[in-house]
Amino acid sequence: MRGINPRVNMIHSSEQQTLIQRAKQITEELQQGVKKSYKEVISVCGDDTHSMGMKPLTFVRQVIATCIYPELLQDDTIATDARQRAERLLKECEGGSVGKYCSYSPIRGIHHSVCEFISKRDGGVPCSVENIYICCGCQDALLFVLNLLVHGEGLDQTGVLTPIPSYNAFVMGLESLGAVMVPYYLCEEEGWELRVEDLRKALYTSRSHCSPRILYVINPGIPTGHVQSRKSMEEVIRFAAEEKLFLFADEVHQDTVYGEDSQFVSYKKVLFEMGPQYSDSMELASFHSVSKGFIGECGLRCGYVELVNIDPSVKPFVKAFFNIQRSPPITGQIAMHIMVDPPKPGDPSYSTFSQEVKFKKDTLVYNVQQVQGIVDTLPGMSFQAGCGGIYAYLRLYLPPKALQQAKDEGTKPDRLYCMRLLEEEGVCLGVGTEFGQKEGTYHIRMCILTPTPKVKEVLSRLKSFHLRFLQEFA
Amino acid sequence: MRGINPRVNMIHSSEQQTLIQRAKQITEELQQGVKKSYKEVISVCGDDTHSMGMKPLTFVRQVIATCIYPELLQDDTIATDARQRAERLLKECEGGSVGKYCSYSPIRGIHHSVCEFISKRDGGVPCSVENIYICCGCQDALLFVLNLLVHGEGLDQTGVLTPIPSYNAFVMGLESLGAVMVPYYLCEEEGWELRVEDLRKALYTSRSHCSPRILYVINPGIPTGHVQSRKSMEEVIRFAAEEKLFLFADEVHQDTVYGEDSQFVSYKKVLFEMGPQYSDSMELASFHSVSKGFIGECGLRCGYVELVNIDPSVKPFVKAFFNIQRSPPITGQIAMHIMVDPPKPGDPSYSTFSQEVKFKKDTLVYNVQQVQGIVDTLPGMSFQAGCGGIYAYLRLYLPPKALQQAKDEGTKPDRLYCMRLLEEEGVCLGVGTEFGQKEGTYHIRMCILTPTPKVKEVLSRLKSFHLRFLQEFA
Repeated sequence: MRGINPRVNMIHSSEQQTLIQRAKQITEELQQGVKKSYKEVISVCGDDTHSMGMKPLTFVRQVIATCIYPELLQDDTIATDARQRAERLLKECEGGSVGKYCSYSPIRGIHHSVCEFISKRDGGVPCSVENIYICCGCQDALLFVLNLLVHGEGLDQTGVLTPIPSYNAFVMGLESLGAVMVPYYLCEEEGWELRVEDLRKALYTSRSHCSPRILYVINPGIPTGHVQSRKSMEEVIRFAAEEKLFLFADEVHQDTVYGEDSQFVSYKKVLFEMGPQYSDSMELASFHSVSKGFIGECGLRCGYVELVNIDPSVKPFVKAFFNIQRSPPITGQIAMHIMVDPPKPGDPSYSTFSQEVKFKKDTLVYNVQQVQGIVDTLPGMSFQAGCGGIYAYLRLYLPPKALQQAKDEGTKPDRLYCMRLLEEEGVCLGVGTEFGQKEGTYHIRMCILTPTPKVKEVLSRLKSFHLRFLQEFA
Repeated sequence: MRGINPRVNMIHSSEQQTLIQRAKQITEELQQGVKKSYKEVISVCGDDTHSMGMKPLTFVRQVIATCIYPELLQDDTIATDARQRAERLLKECEGGSVGKYCSYSPIRGIHHSVCEFISKRDGGVPCSVENIYICCGCQDALLFVLNLLVHGEGLDQTGVLTPIPSYNAFVMGLESLGAVMVPYYLCEEEGWELRVEDLRKALYTSRSHCSPRILYVINPGIPTGHVQSRKSMEEVIRFAAEEKLFLFADEVHQDTVYGEDSQFVSYKKVLFEMGPQYSDSMELASFHSVSKGFIGECGLRCGYVELVNIDPSVKPFVKAFFNIQRSPPITGQIAMHIMVDPPKPGDPSYSTFSQEVKFKKDTLVYNVQQVQGIVDTLPGMSFQAGCGGIYAYLRLYLPPKALQQAKDEGTKPDRLYCMRLLEEEGVCLGVGTEFGQKEGTYHIRMCILTPTPKVKEVLSRLKSFHLRFLQEFA
């Protein structure tokens, strides 16, 4: 190929990818009759709860199916309010078809619904439709808003303060845009808390090689599940204001805060409650998505970003981009419409909808306890349980001989561990190196918004493997 | 905003956008009871045939609705083969839900179906699943493949040979990536033919200020509808080979070739039939989409790109990008599955499917004749009818006084024309400046894959406006 953009080399396949490929191969081997000590591979490495067996929400699917095939408006087996919602949404599509382009005009009214949702969530903090941009999933919006701000070379190159652990796709995105990733470490010992002193240290150090312009925070944490306290968020906001950083708040897991006494508070709410000194000037982007939470519709691809205090001169470009270059799929927009405006008490679908959501929440709470229960009995493993999100992120304490073995094989210790677990027990977990970790620490991630029997099976296989592994390398 | 990527300024709202906004306002005014000489605004400026009233294909919608809401697998009012297809596709989704992520693994088997489609279309030319990338609409894939190749500054900056006319979103995309747009003009007098001498001229001129690395061709033409002859394509391939250009073939309108004696031939087929001298080395990207053609599912967002002869060392990045950063929505993938593998003779849905497609094709052919019939009677307007695509692209010959008026108003003459047409007759057309045109020429675009009564109404309003306009500025 003649002349390739040198940044292309920054986009790379991940460690996890190799594991996923191998998991597929093993599944094929099992189908071809190869004998193993297990009958099927269980993959809980991702964040795709439907693929792990959680059921979609009935109301969401009824509305989308009816929009797609409007003959269902006459189908009595579909709930009345689902059909009414579909009818309303179809009226908002020119030509009455969800096959219409969404450029220029996503589903009419969707911006308003998102605004009402945000404003209600934030206890009345105002929200303007002008600040809401609907996108093809939150990752897409993140990369776009990053692209607005990333520029410069050498000392002037944009640095992005990024939590460790976070996730590979974001880091890859930074690199492909030519931004400098400035890692700040979350404090595992304190339940993965974000400590401003660690932020400050990272910022000052980075100034020797780039210009930090963006602070990326994830709350609830990915993959940690840590839910920030209001006090911690206030400190972060003060720090960002002092250092003139654009604050990126990745809040895609806001629906799944399940810890007792903990609740989700948005960065925007905290910002506005800190008064005009902050809320009049602080640049904030807050991201949300239909892929996560109890809705979990990753495959439909839709999210939104709210941009607060951005330069008015930039708005037309932002608008043009989201309207013309990124036309979010309509089926995803419908899912988002329901996410921000779900069935209400008294609606025919309310009871089913609430039960389905409650079941998922209960599953999450129960599964966390299951994980904690097993980890507590195991040597060489610890778990700082979070209060939100959909993962359990476990620390491994691996014996020196295992570390040496990994070195000899030219691989990372946690990857060695996960690959062996996959081969021996047919369980595919997330590898810590994929999320970033402190030098010398090793982790594994498990999605726990997964049917409980599956989680129990995973834990049982993990336990027997783990003990065997420790013994082997003792 | 502190420090903005200077390329952001390149993304701008379009001339068309202003017209579309005004069309919406007028619609609202009419709804509020404001009296006009027309009762509704008709917009045929876009390429979104559903929003203009063309109906979706029943089979497509039945399959998607059933995948979304699998209870419909038991619904007898849905065709048997639609339910069978849905059942098959659901089996290919982990967890049996189309809400699953598509990263890492789009619907299993979809790459194979696309390959079979391409290979059959190209009379047996081989196609490898390794070369097929499923994307979130063709524009997204275009920008990504461009991004692979765009780099350098000054004389080394990547130039992209771009047909004029083409369309605004592509040009905006080029600018936002930091590529240099190198225009080559299509020959209107010869039915918008692509002449290699014009390509060569453009290329040589551009070398004084950039490094042309990419040749972008659109066949059938957007907005011209011109369908290239095999001879012309061979010339283009020889030229690209001589000049070491990466060939981008935008073939999204391949399904709607309707001219007698004309048929769609892909660049890949021609390339392979020219022998290994070309087919072993020429870098080619061919794009297709579910948004266009008789399927017209713009809102579902899916397309594919086939990459031929790309550097093997680049493939992992390409794969990582499409798999991780761009997860195409599943409902779009289902539409694509049907686009490449439609009902066959003997299938329960075959007859309805064929009739629906035939109706759309007949509509297109009839509408072209209607446009030609009216334009032939009008002074100051000409039409080089194409043999493909879904637009009529008309040339306006505007009186000097109208040009002066536009100058006085600080606007483009064709925009003045379109804005007046919109105000006076409630018809919203595409403005030539949006597509690029030779200095001193003016055009309007109309989507003609639109229900015939609507096209007739548009033509009638256009005719009376046009004559009045000519008279006013005589």
